[in-house]
Amino acid sequence: MAWFRTLTRMSATAKSWPPPLLPSPLRTVPTAPVASASLLLTSLRNFSTGTAASPASPTHCGDLGPTGGGEKPRVVVLGSGWAGCRLMKGIDTSIYDVVCVSPRNHMVFTPLLASTCVGTLEFRSVAEPVGRIQPAISREPGSYFFLSNCKGIDAKNHRVICETVTDGPNTPDPWKFNISYDKLVIALGAEALTFGIHGVKEHAIFLREVHHAQEIRRRLLLNLMLSDVPGTTEQEKSRLLHCVVVGGGPTGVEFSGELSDFIMRDVRQRHAHVKDYIRVTLIEANEILSSFDDRLRRYATRQLTKSGVHLVRGIVKDVEPDKIVLDNGTEVPYGLLVWSTGVGPSSLVKSLDLPKAPGGRIGIDEWLRVPNVPDVYAIGDCSGFVESTGKPVLPALAQVAERQGKYLAGLLNRIGKAGGGRANSGAEVDLGDPFVYKHLGSMATLGRYKALVDLRQSKEGKGISLAGFLSWFIWRSAYLTRVISWRNRFYVAVNWLTTMVFGRDISRI
Amino acid sequence: MAWFRTLTRMSATAKSWPPPLLPSPLRTVPTAPVASASLLLTSLRNFSTGTAASPASPTHCGDLGPTGGGEKPRVVVLGSGWAGCRLMKGIDTSIYDVVCVSPRNHMVFTPLLASTCVGTLEFRSVAEPVGRIQPAISREPGSYFFLSNCKGIDAKNHRVICETVTDGPNTPDPWKFNISYDKLVIALGAEALTFGIHGVKEHAIFLREVHHAQEIRRRLLLNLMLSDVPGTTEQEKSRLLHCVVVGGGPTGVEFSGELSDFIMRDVRQRHAHVKDYIRVTLIEANEILSSFDDRLRRYATRQLTKSGVHLVRGIVKDVEPDKIVLDNGTEVPYGLLVWSTGVGPSSLVKSLDLPKAPGGRIGIDEWLRVPNVPDVYAIGDCSGFVESTGKPVLPALAQVAERQGKYLAGLLNRIGKAGGGRANSGAEVDLGDPFVYKHLGSMATLGRYKALVDLRQSKEGKGISLAGFLSWFIWRSAYLTRVISWRNRFYVAVNWLTTMVFGRDISRI
Repeated sequence: MAWFRTLTRMSATAKSWPPPLLPSPLRTVPTAPVASASLLLTSLRNFSTGTAASPASPTHCGDLGPTGGGEKPRVVVLGSGWAGCRLMKGIDTSIYDVVCVSPRNHMVFTPLLASTCVGTLEFRSVAEPVGRIQPAISREPGSYFFLSNCKGIDAKNHRVICETVTDGPNTPDPWKFNISYDKLVIALGAEALTFGIHGVKEHAIFLREVHHAQEIRRRLLLNLMLSDVPGTTEQEKSRLLHCVVVGGGPTGVEFSGELSDFIMRDVRQRHAHVKDYIRVTLIEANEILSSFDDRLRRYATRQLTKSGVHLVRGIVKDVEPDKIVLDNGTEVPYGLLVWSTGVGPSSLVKSLDLPKAPGGRIGIDEWLRVPNVPDVYAIGDCSGFVESTGKPVLPALAQVAERQGKYLAGLLNRIGKAGGGRANSGAEVDLGDPFVYKHLGSMATLGRYKALVDLRQSKEGKGISLAGFLSWFIWRSAYLTRVISWRNRFYVAVNWLTTMVFGRDISRI
Repeated sequence: MAWFRTLTRMSATAKSWPPPLLPSPLRTVPTAPVASASLLLTSLRNFSTGTAASPASPTHCGDLGPTGGGEKPRVVVLGSGWAGCRLMKGIDTSIYDVVCVSPRNHMVFTPLLASTCVGTLEFRSVAEPVGRIQPAISREPGSYFFLSNCKGIDAKNHRVICETVTDGPNTPDPWKFNISYDKLVIALGAEALTFGIHGVKEHAIFLREVHHAQEIRRRLLLNLMLSDVPGTTEQEKSRLLHCVVVGGGPTGVEFSGELSDFIMRDVRQRHAHVKDYIRVTLIEANEILSSFDDRLRRYATRQLTKSGVHLVRGIVKDVEPDKIVLDNGTEVPYGLLVWSTGVGPSSLVKSLDLPKAPGGRIGIDEWLRVPNVPDVYAIGDCSGFVESTGKPVLPALAQVAERQGKYLAGLLNRIGKAGGGRANSGAEVDLGDPFVYKHLGSMATLGRYKALVDLRQSKEGKGISLAGFLSWFIWRSAYLTRVISWRNRFYVAVNWLTTMVFGRDISRI
């Protein structure tokens, strides 16, 4: 190792940290590693005089100020869900710079999330990085993604207050900063509803983010394995392997279906010792799949019961670490509790000093503008039509969010092209047609190659509704073509194929 | 929803919890969901009289006692690494029952672990569930996998003391239990060496388990994103994006290579704003890849330097949350610190009252038996030949572990076939040839379609050594055929292909 042996003998000009940058593959490569390395060592030695900012006491300052004449106008998007991501995808980046603020750097393909809990799909297959949805964010000098939470909106000064996220010890403490906007799109989504029931937040797992699905999977596999260990009583085995799902909407039903499919196909084979103890109970206060056609609901009830899901009508009163208590006093012990009883406005949305729609969402007009607040728009689950529009608040569906994102991207592009992209301008631009929502139908899978497809435009309307294998096939194909990138389309297809051929994966990582 | 409407009107015989078992797909399916469901509700009501075991105060008792006449003899395997898994794969389950005790339910395909940190491979692709390696564990009534840690060995009474693992709140507290063995195979592996350096365990990340790779990935992506946020000083950007690897063995070199490849190919494109700040430094006290041929080492040094890895010779004295201090006083600020300076005996192995090999590993003879302890064998990184064999302790390599596992499976099968499978029997069986290790060569990848393959049988020996693209191709093919299951072979190939076509995945989940 001539390189190392000559290291100490070399003398080189003292250089200050940081050492020479990583060479670009196009730049000339250093041909004398001996020199460059000893040079680095020297630079390391000299570094000790520098003062590194301690992660405990960072001195952060710096905002992203208002855009100047030489820059493009800036669209700030709060959130990276269906609404925000579809908007960013559609924004014309030759007109605007895009800045996205979100605590996660990817969009979650929520309709497929339930499948990841039991290993039918990989977690990575349902997550789409924001930088792949809108490549300008990674490349353009004025476009950014900030891994941060929005803490407030200062509409008077056209700026938002943000705070970075942290990730436990050894990561920097969070700090605050401001971003000035020309146009602001609020797409903050909604929060899982707990109806103030004690213990839900502490003991139940929601099913809205990838980390929720990961936690469900880890818990499920842990319980399966612990019930096999000597010293577990029969009663505790029953408890550990009782999976309770609260909420009979599409998410709850799909998760129950996937879970019973997993039990039928995989647990029986791979955890033969405990297969007779595992069961799934779905608790719903009213009707399951209330938005679907009567015939489809009956079909779903039949299918779920057939595959071993116990359907129970009840209202949860209290959640304890190992059991839930229903309003009639029944105690239901559980090992895994998944909570999906719908969503409502988040505490941040509630706290914002903006016009509101009935129900507490951010109020918008028919062009998705927040009335009387210049340059501020709201889309997706966090927004709803104000009463004066005479329109009902739209349901919290991916479909609505995606359509609003697409519409607003077009509207902002039109405004920008007409020269109204800057803050406090564009009032005179013709906005064109208002946003009109047309329901394309609903889908839900039940596991075991069965699904429901309801193509009616409203609950009362007429139209096609399908159930069974054909629906399952349509469901899979529809999702496959809607997953945003080709990479993920490919991965989802590969995952489905592998699960069919080899069964689900059961490694607990 | 007739099902729900009739629910309260129904009356049914009171049933006790648990409700009827999940019906098997082959059994008759209930045709009257109304009845079965209300029956369930009744059973739920009646359950409240039962007392569920609280997770805080479980009353665990029960051991896996000695095998009786009607049972097969029991082989207990401690650990699920290369050695233990290869052994289980080879055990003849018509002769023995197999019980595996390990805190993880999968084997990690360690040579590919470095690739998962930067998204070249998925985490799942390098994990192989124990139940897939030896299917009897999931199916046979006397074979088990216990998610537990071994806490001690009571060789006199032919049993091991175990304790279950826990996973934070809402999971059962750990409890202890005993397993009696007929034959015991200790394959507990080794622990990362920290040389007693202060702060290593707190601030550095090792690269030995899937969760380590996950943590490295999360940290790396967090730092990449935080450095882009307004308010980060130039100095802190440099610190956050300085990845320091300590240890120039194959793991350290492979990780550095993958990381610089990730920076060259993906960070430049996807994190364009911060691309000039990220750098990789590899610190090694002696020579990098000391087990490889001189020419290969020179080649590796050249390739790593070319791809921007800074090679530094130094000894780490102290590790702080944001910087390491070298023995010459140099302070090196870091945002990510990966530690791979080799392995040594774990504290459990050290504490076991068994014969030891030079260096503290569990002593074994040439048939991998622990001398003077009947029916106890040790294989893999936790074991070493006792001095009296006159043989050197073998290196801590997957290759050695795998070969020992294979050999011992054959030996145990031979003993079992000759009727010596029970505890305290088999002493008279002819053991055949002792275990002889023949080194097949070493491989290491350097990133960017380059790898080293050293086919010499020893450091001083003669033989073929290759470097460059051909080696990279051999490396990939060799690993592809060695990943145990077809499922994972398929996934690794798909992952590699996707990375080539679409680049690496950068979602932080």
